[in-house]
Amino acid sequence: MNQEYITANAWSIIEDDFDKGRVKSSESLFSLGNGAMGQRANFEETYTGDTFQGSYIAGVYYPDKTRVGWWKNGYPEYFAKVLNAPNWIGINVTVNGVALDLNTCKSITNYKRELNMKEGWYERSFTAILPNDVEVNVSAKRFLSLTHDELGVINYKVTPVNTKAVIEFSPYIDAGITNEDTNWDDKFWDILSVTEADQQGFISSKTMKTEFHVGTYMQSLVFVDGQKQNLKPSVTQSDSELYYKYTLNVNKGEEASIQKFAGYVTDMNHKTSQLIDAAKTVLKESINLGYETLLKQQKDAWASIWDMADITIDGDVKAQQGIRFNIFQLNQTYLGKDERLNIGPKGFTGEKYGGSTYWDTEAYCIPFYMATKDQNVARSLLAYRYNHLDKAIENAEKLGFTNGAALYPMVTMNGEESHNEWEITFEEIHRNGAMVYAIYNYVRYTGDFSYIPEMGLEVMIAISRFWYQRFNYSQEKNKYVMLGVTGPNEYENNVNNNWYTNYFAKWCIEYTMLCLDKVKDGYSDDYNRIVGHTKLNDSELDKWQELVNNVYLPYSGKYDVYLQQDNFLDKELIPVSELDKTQRPINQKWSWDRILRSCYIKQADVLQGFYFFEDHFTEEELERHFDFYEPLTVHESSLSPCVHSIQAAKLNRMDQAYTFYLRTSRLDLDDYNKEVEEGCHITSMAGTWMSIVEGFGGMRVVNDTLSFEPRIPKEWDAYSFKVNFRNQVVKVNVSQKGSTFEVEGNSTLSIILNGEALKISPSQPVKA
Amino acid sequence: MNQEYITANAWSIIEDDFDKGRVKSSESLFSLGNGAMGQRANFEETYTGDTFQGSYIAGVYYPDKTRVGWWKNGYPEYFAKVLNAPNWIGINVTVNGVALDLNTCKSITNYKRELNMKEGWYERSFTAILPNDVEVNVSAKRFLSLTHDELGVINYKVTPVNTKAVIEFSPYIDAGITNEDTNWDDKFWDILSVTEADQQGFISSKTMKTEFHVGTYMQSLVFVDGQKQNLKPSVTQSDSELYYKYTLNVNKGEEASIQKFAGYVTDMNHKTSQLIDAAKTVLKESINLGYETLLKQQKDAWASIWDMADITIDGDVKAQQGIRFNIFQLNQTYLGKDERLNIGPKGFTGEKYGGSTYWDTEAYCIPFYMATKDQNVARSLLAYRYNHLDKAIENAEKLGFTNGAALYPMVTMNGEESHNEWEITFEEIHRNGAMVYAIYNYVRYTGDFSYIPEMGLEVMIAISRFWYQRFNYSQEKNKYVMLGVTGPNEYENNVNNNWYTNYFAKWCIEYTMLCLDKVKDGYSDDYNRIVGHTKLNDSELDKWQELVNNVYLPYSGKYDVYLQQDNFLDKELIPVSELDKTQRPINQKWSWDRILRSCYIKQADVLQGFYFFEDHFTEEELERHFDFYEPLTVHESSLSPCVHSIQAAKLNRMDQAYTFYLRTSRLDLDDYNKEVEEGCHITSMAGTWMSIVEGFGGMRVVNDTLSFEPRIPKEWDAYSFKVNFRNQVVKVNVSQKGSTFEVEGNSTLSIILNGEALKISPSQPVKA
Repeated sequence: MNQEYITANAWSIIEDDFDKGRVKSSESLFSLGNGAMGQRANFEETYTGDTFQGSYIAGVYYPDKTRVGWWKNGYPEYFAKVLNAPNWIGINVTVNGVALDLNTCKSITNYKRELNMKEGWYERSFTAILPNDVEVNVSAKRFLSLTHDELGVINYKVTPVNTKAVIEFSPYIDAGITNEDTNWDDKFWDILSVTEADQQGFISSKTMKTEFHVGTYMQSLVFVDGQKQNLKPSVTQSDSELYYKYTLNVNKGEEASIQKFAGYVTDMNHKTSQLIDAAKTVLKESINLGYETLLKQQKDAWASIWDMADITIDGDVKAQQGIRFNIFQLNQTYLGKDERLNIGPKGFTGEKYGGSTYWDTEAYCIPFYMATKDQNVARSLLAYRYNHLDKAIENAEKLGFTNGAALYPMVTMNGEESHNEWEITFEEIHRNGAMVYAIYNYVRYTGDFSYIPEMGLEVMIAISRFWYQRFNYSQEKNKYVMLGVTGPNEYENNVNNNWYTNYFAKWCIEYTMLCLDKVKDGYSDDYNRIVGHTKLNDSELDKWQELVNNVYLPYSGKYDVYLQQDNFLDKELIPVSELDKTQRPINQKWSWDRILRSCYIKQADVLQGFYFFEDHFTEEELERHFDFYEPLTVHESSLSPCVHSIQAAKLNRMDQAYTFYLRTSRLDLDDYNKEVEEGCHITSMAGTWMSIVEGFGGMRVVNDTLSFEPRIPKEWDAYSFKVNFRNQVVKVNVSQKGSTFEVEGNSTLSIILNGEALKISPSQPVKA
Repeated sequence: MNQEYITANAWSIIEDDFDKGRVKSSESLFSLGNGAMGQRANFEETYTGDTFQGSYIAGVYYPDKTRVGWWKNGYPEYFAKVLNAPNWIGINVTVNGVALDLNTCKSITNYKRELNMKEGWYERSFTAILPNDVEVNVSAKRFLSLTHDELGVINYKVTPVNTKAVIEFSPYIDAGITNEDTNWDDKFWDILSVTEADQQGFISSKTMKTEFHVGTYMQSLVFVDGQKQNLKPSVTQSDSELYYKYTLNVNKGEEASIQKFAGYVTDMNHKTSQLIDAAKTVLKESINLGYETLLKQQKDAWASIWDMADITIDGDVKAQQGIRFNIFQLNQTYLGKDERLNIGPKGFTGEKYGGSTYWDTEAYCIPFYMATKDQNVARSLLAYRYNHLDKAIENAEKLGFTNGAALYPMVTMNGEESHNEWEITFEEIHRNGAMVYAIYNYVRYTGDFSYIPEMGLEVMIAISRFWYQRFNYSQEKNKYVMLGVTGPNEYENNVNNNWYTNYFAKWCIEYTMLCLDKVKDGYSDDYNRIVGHTKLNDSELDKWQELVNNVYLPYSGKYDVYLQQDNFLDKELIPVSELDKTQRPINQKWSWDRILRSCYIKQADVLQGFYFFEDHFTEEELERHFDFYEPLTVHESSLSPCVHSIQAAKLNRMDQAYTFYLRTSRLDLDDYNKEVEEGCHITSMAGTWMSIVEGFGGMRVVNDTLSFEPRIPKEWDAYSFKVNFRNQVVKVNVSQKGSTFEVEGNSTLSIILNGEALKISPSQPVKA
């Protein structure tokens, strides 16, 4: 744990002290998003201290020219990255002509930030004495509307405490912004026009190369003690900025305030020629509704999300705050409304990792969205990859694969690979497996097989072709081997026969063949269409079968475990517990070669396979592998603790499960990895959800039936969660005294509880 | 072969046609150097076409900030690189007010470049019709003086053919230069002053960060038809440039000419405050001597080099030209006068690879310098590494090694590592072995053991400590293994138990222990000094012994060969001959992962070990390994063909040996790798020399005696070479009819000829 300044609270993230050194951390933690846009918790008014500005528009990216030390053939030329977008939140404030700037105030008291997760807003308030000795109370509340997802609203209030004062509000929009994360200090935006009329301001800009057209707009209302003032503001504009200025004379104790309605309209949703009209429509509608009504709609929209997605924890307010923060951020990032979007590792809280899509979506996020939203949301996430299939085939062709083999990118915005370390880009190919697993998992959970004939099967065939070509026959082993890969444990590169990858590849081909048979039997039109254009034939299937029958899986008889890779046992196996603490984290202390030849595992690798394919192995096998690998694991990936928490819970090691849970749920709030300034770890937050639902709750799908094996950490009094399973909502309450299972709606649901088949009817909860 | 425009000639490199597309290639091939400075064959006069300007000063470098895609802990922050230095060759020429520029002339005829290797000068001549229809004959001859190694001399002549004309010569020096190869477009030079007096111009500049002070100077004399003209030139100067202008009125057919004396003085050889004085001294002395005398000295100096280093080949003029070009370039690059210098892979012919030192020096260059120069030259090259020992220890410490273990850098200017790809920098550690081998080889060849107690033993102990720590004990194999290395074959990265590296490491420790015993017995003062400060004790030696007794060496019983690495046999072994030509070179056609998991070998790896340790293996073993590995080798390194040529010759496969020889000897002249524009492959040129002397001549040292097994390719009538062995010079002549062995001087020399011990006396050559 690196910080501990967030006040524990069940529903809010609260900071109650101003500290310049924490501004960037809080800018990440108090970020807002509504699935379509996002905003770091930057101050509205001038701040001359250290800050990391970030405004983001979902799906708007720029292909930044790649930077490498030594070029290798096959590297992508561009790294598509999320862009810092024009600033719409800015409101410069002066009091008697002196700028309000928290970096220069004589004193700051009563400082408070609150991110109200229940209602979906963020407020900052404080009392400050300015350099001219005027004391003011300030509060600024804002939200990104869920009901109008092109709109952000700010209500900014200033009350002079010790004198009457002239308060100037200068709301502005500014398209002259840059990314901190650029490879060559390129300019990413072309500004096309800055226009204004009738107190409505508009900047039209477009991204270079990708040519996303974005309109940034604003309109403001000003008030004195709540009375709307009909002032005509002065206007200042430049090539990239537009400022209004409203001057209000207020008495001591009187409140001057401004409501700013602003945001983005883009050509992803409107014709380019109609962007200004679209902005005017949003402004008209939102100002008609008014601030209070919009805020009420916001609360209602979040109430509806929480109704389904909330997890309660009694008796441990920090754990409660942690899990709600995770669920809140996931919903701020992605709401499943748009097939073109996905879940970037930092969501809308920072630039790092380019805001792009990783295998995190398939491995970690889909289960969360599947269980807490309509199943179409998960289907949209699957369709995102189907829509990128051609690009994945091109990507594989660049690496020498043929016959429609597909390799999905490690990192992408538009389907093209954006990563450029050979050991990752070219070799961390297990990601292809996660694409197929997500389809399997979706069908298993929702029962909706139709996705496979409609879209999934083509993805699966292309991936199976990739795996088939990627194996080669080893005369030495008389088996098919896979050389030169990087498994989920990125602390080994270019290894041979990573068990996880080999096992996964074998399974992908087997599952593809199984689905082919089912589609042939039940969806002959789709079957003929797919076989027609993929030119799949029996001889190819025979070769697949021959391969899966002879895939090499490294195994140690001595330890009775599958080996992470061929030569794992040549390493010195010294448990992490014997590693000097000064050497941790090893990725900051050790050179890369030392990490690579050490036995230390960054995140679940063999155990990730045991997580995905739990039903392929006995509990004894899980225990043996857990006991072999977990002691060698340093958990230096945010994706590591959740899987281990689930497995520890399954093995009834609740103390260990709870320790892993804490680490995953408050990773950002307590800044375990010393990097929250750069943004929050959004995708791993879904793993936190899994730790409770699948770990403590023991939820699985077994033969089309939900199964539970509830457990509870000794630190908690009780916890509860809901899941949507095949359009039935089950609420699970677990306390130290027992569990209850309730079903919403009218139908009865069959479940398996600790191995026993039961039925829950709406009127009769199950107690255990 | 990519080009074939160089005219075959025994002693000169000749181009006899102007082609704008070949300007950069010829700029490399016609480069000049004198060990202290170097100059690409850029034109003196204005050239507005495509050109790659390059002037270099030996030992003057800049630590350019590293550029990587993804930073890894342990990467060096700087990449020391050779700098493009101020331009001293420039002479702008106008004819009746129109600039002479080969890019704009109406016609160019009689164009010829000649690099006269016998005498060490370069001349360019042509007839051109300028845009103003004046036709001129031009010739420009220049050399970098071997006798005055701070001096370059140019004799530039213009004769108007069809009219009288006003010829303006504007000799200049210009410090406003840049590198093409910069990571961040940084400026590398600070210009301190531009001064002139009495027709002597001087620019004082210093490199940023490293603060090498360099004075660039010039003085010129002008002539009409050979008559010196006492003109006072006009002067133009800026912050970075200084121009004189001499105006000559010449009749039709009269020759206007200018002799420019110019070059560099640096604070590596003079006090900073005395640089101008040093330049004046060079100018005074050289102008006193005069152009013709300086040129005569140049011819004499080269005659003396050739007397010892020449190899003659009769009956194959292209082969003759090739080997002389190689010997000439090696001598232009490094003459062994300065312990601070070394041999960069591109010498003074380009910027690429930073002009830095690689293991090429120890593995390829030292045998050449050892046999063709005084043994102190090789000793200087060894001392260069001894002087870097502290840096090599620091380098190993950065990677986690302790107890004075040393890892020599992959690339360096000043002893610090400059390379930053983890698979090379951190893992291509076999380079450490070459450091010890060079010491062993020096002692074997020269008989001078004294280097070991004086300097070598400390290097060997530090390297042995590195190897000891770099191995780890494998319980699985019950042997010491070395994980995560890259062998000489850079087409495999991060492999386990690279045979070459393991074998070499084992040998290093064994040889160190052997030398320790000899030093203990014979040099007790040195022994006590070294043991005192290295704190080496018996228990450490016992551990070394235990390790070398149990080093794992991968071996295949099936093929009866040592394996390149543990998992080599899991690869598909398809000979290069079956690889489609469209797929070559694979480093341009295939993605890196595909290369890595293929069986294709970039350059000798196991066979490099068989080359170094030839006497450890039988000829049958060599043949088996050659037959196993060579067919899988793509020779995509300039260092590959020579080793294979030597081994093919040893196996009496003369056709194959000859094919490899051709590839190595004319690599640059015929531009096999399509990159000669960037500079020539200097270090591999020493390999060409080895192909003849060790390959065809079969020269070895066996028990302190020179041994020969001469062979001759069927394409040649005869060849000859000389070697200096322990201060006796042996001349070897091999023809289709037989061989003769002559010795210079007064003493008799014992040799072994085809296994038979013989004596050669000065009066009685041996014939065979």
